[in-house]
Amino acid sequence: MLQASAYAAQSDQSGLAPFTLERRDLRPDDVAIEIDYCGVCHTDIHFVQNDWGMTQYPVVPGHEIVGRVTAVGSNVTGFKAGDVVGVGCMVDSCRHCEPCKEGLEQYCLEGMTPTYNGEDRHDHSITFGGYSEAIVVSDRFVVSIPERLDPAAAAPLLCAGITTYSPLRHYGVKPGDKVGVIGMGGLGHMGIKFARALGAEVTVFTRSEHKVPEARSQGADHVIVSTDEAQMAAAAGAFDFMLDTVPVQHDLNPYLALLRYDGTHILVGLLEPVEPPLQAGNLVLGRRVLAGSLIGGMPETQEVLDFCAEHDIACDVEMLDIRHINEAYERVQSGDVKYRFVIDMATLKGDGR
Amino acid sequence: MLQASAYAAQSDQSGLAPFTLERRDLRPDDVAIEIDYCGVCHTDIHFVQNDWGMTQYPVVPGHEIVGRVTAVGSNVTGFKAGDVVGVGCMVDSCRHCEPCKEGLEQYCLEGMTPTYNGEDRHDHSITFGGYSEAIVVSDRFVVSIPERLDPAAAAPLLCAGITTYSPLRHYGVKPGDKVGVIGMGGLGHMGIKFARALGAEVTVFTRSEHKVPEARSQGADHVIVSTDEAQMAAAAGAFDFMLDTVPVQHDLNPYLALLRYDGTHILVGLLEPVEPPLQAGNLVLGRRVLAGSLIGGMPETQEVLDFCAEHDIACDVEMLDIRHINEAYERVQSGDVKYRFVIDMATLKGDGR
Ligand SMILES: [Zn+2]
Ligand SMILES: [Zn+2]
Ligand SMILES: [Zn+2]
Ligand SMILES: [Zn+2]
Repeated sequence: MLQASAYAAQSDQSGLAPFTLERRDLRPDDVAIEIDYCGVCHTDIHFVQNDWGMTQYPVVPGHEIVGRVTAVGSNVTGFKAGDVVGVGCMVDSCRHCEPCKEGLEQYCLEGMTPTYNGEDRHDHSITFGGYSEAIVVSDRFVVSIPERLDPAAAAPLLCAGITTYSPLRHYGVKPGDKVGVIGMGGLGHMGIKFARALGAEVTVFTRSEHKVPEARSQGADHVIVSTDEAQMAAAAGAFDFMLDTVPVQHDLNPYLALLRYDGTHILVGLLEPVEPPLQAGNLVLGRRVLAGSLIGGMPETQEVLDFCAEHDIACDVEMLDIRHINEAYERVQSGDVKYRFVIDMATLKGDGR
Repeated sequence: MLQASAYAAQSDQSGLAPFTLERRDLRPDDVAIEIDYCGVCHTDIHFVQNDWGMTQYPVVPGHEIVGRVTAVGSNVTGFKAGDVVGVGCMVDSCRHCEPCKEGLEQYCLEGMTPTYNGEDRHDHSITFGGYSEAIVVSDRFVVSIPERLDPAAAAPLLCAGITTYSPLRHYGVKPGDKVGVIGMGGLGHMGIKFARALGAEVTVFTRSEHKVPEARSQGADHVIVSTDEAQMAAAAGAFDFMLDTVPVQHDLNPYLALLRYDGTHILVGLLEPVEPPLQAGNLVLGRRVLAGSLIGGMPETQEVLDFCAEHDIACDVEMLDIRHINEAYERVQSGDVKYRFVIDMATLKGDGR
């Protein structure tokens, strides 16, 4: 067993504070990783606050993990000490069901094991995430960080990146397609970059006029202020795809009306009931599609890293001292971050532990 | 101008009664048809009762029309007097937009012209449907009824048939796929036949145990009573496709849970707000798709007729004397018809007009 410094929440009121956890001895397929960087995902905040009623305390969040391999189990051939690697939202799955066989472990029929707040399939311990100095993960769920990528800016690719890349690939976005990106946070700004890199003409939807210049600087070909009915009406029937990254309830119907016939609206952030209600006619009368997509499988997670290296794509990040994590959560919740906090794990040692 | 006997509603309270209408002189592309049979679609009832607030009275319903060509315009080469032909839900469209060019006239960007209660694109008259002895329609919107088909049983293929055939083809239903059919009315029973003919394993969902034998006799491989939670739970994740023919509000979520990952739920009957609300997680967590589909284009409408001739598929019909149309509407509304009323238009002459 390895003792590792970490930050954990002890209750829905506690916020995050220093914590010491144990990482297991290496199984034959395990990779031990010293963590350098960990992105801060909105999901982390939901778990710390127990917003979904499923948190098991203490919880150590973090599923956008980049670090260096320190040791590997006896059967591991794909990684060696010193390799720069990443771990995303999953650390295990059943490995024998149909989606697992297809490399779509996120849809594992027996349920994938999340990187934190999940139950280890072997020793039944609760998994702890990346807000810590080290982690031990089965090699199937470890990816290589290409040399050309800045490791800190690569961390958010493991969740925000793959979440937006996967559906754009799955639905075959191609040069000339018109793609709308709804929401311009951690996910949305990656969606813009990927859609552009795939050759699409990208329109960003934002609720406020003052975000228009920022959207353009992110690479948007066009920006539509969604609260401006005239702008929305002018775009009716124009889009092949909508990439909807909004994680809170919102009216889908005005966006469905902007899709052309056979267009596809892709939900990647919403897990709630759709309110106001979906108008079925918006689908039927244009043979439109409402789809959902969850992160990506392990092969595609490696693919998005390689794609980013090839296309010089990185997440826009703000480096964070882990001692300021609770303030950072407040800033994430008020939308005050461009676009992803990434914890510099060196600061974990800085707090004297 | 040709005077033609018909049945029309004069108001939302009037019900249907004898009426005389005029059919236009033939334009160069027109086909004049003496109507032998017309199916009774639930949409007809909605228009007669003005349920959607868009009825223009007098309304002559009917868009499942089969008859014989009596004359053709000077430019018509595909049809000649004596041909047995059909007319479905559309009688015109812009003909130059992208969907029209693709033969998807039902999604015409300028709006297709419905067979009744629509506005003619040339003389701006209101279109009258098939509850009449004759109709004049542009040749692009006329299909050939294959000799092998019983013309009366072929009539409902022009709406109920194409509506269920088109999405099964569009989404590529193939041998071995597991298809659920929700609802067992005019549309649903055709959905069963088509899914079977395409090689799928078909499960019918019905709310009542007593419909199980009937579902089996229609060709269902399996029947699930949707009100039986144990039966529903046992089918979780089992289906590639759901063909949802239910035209009234219903909870989609229990059915989405029965789709496998990447499964598709196809709405063909619902135009209302989705209530209870769609749970977005049911889409996101399994990369599932909620899709809609509207009738079919003209090439595919011909295709479904040819497909039915080849596979010996017909709609189950009950022949109707048009003088009993108002009672028939009551029976349709109480679900008391197996599965489609088809008006024998010879009875129009029987009422002494
Ligand atoms: Zn995340
Ligand atoms: Zn699995
Ligand atoms: Zn109809
Ligand atoms: Zn058109």
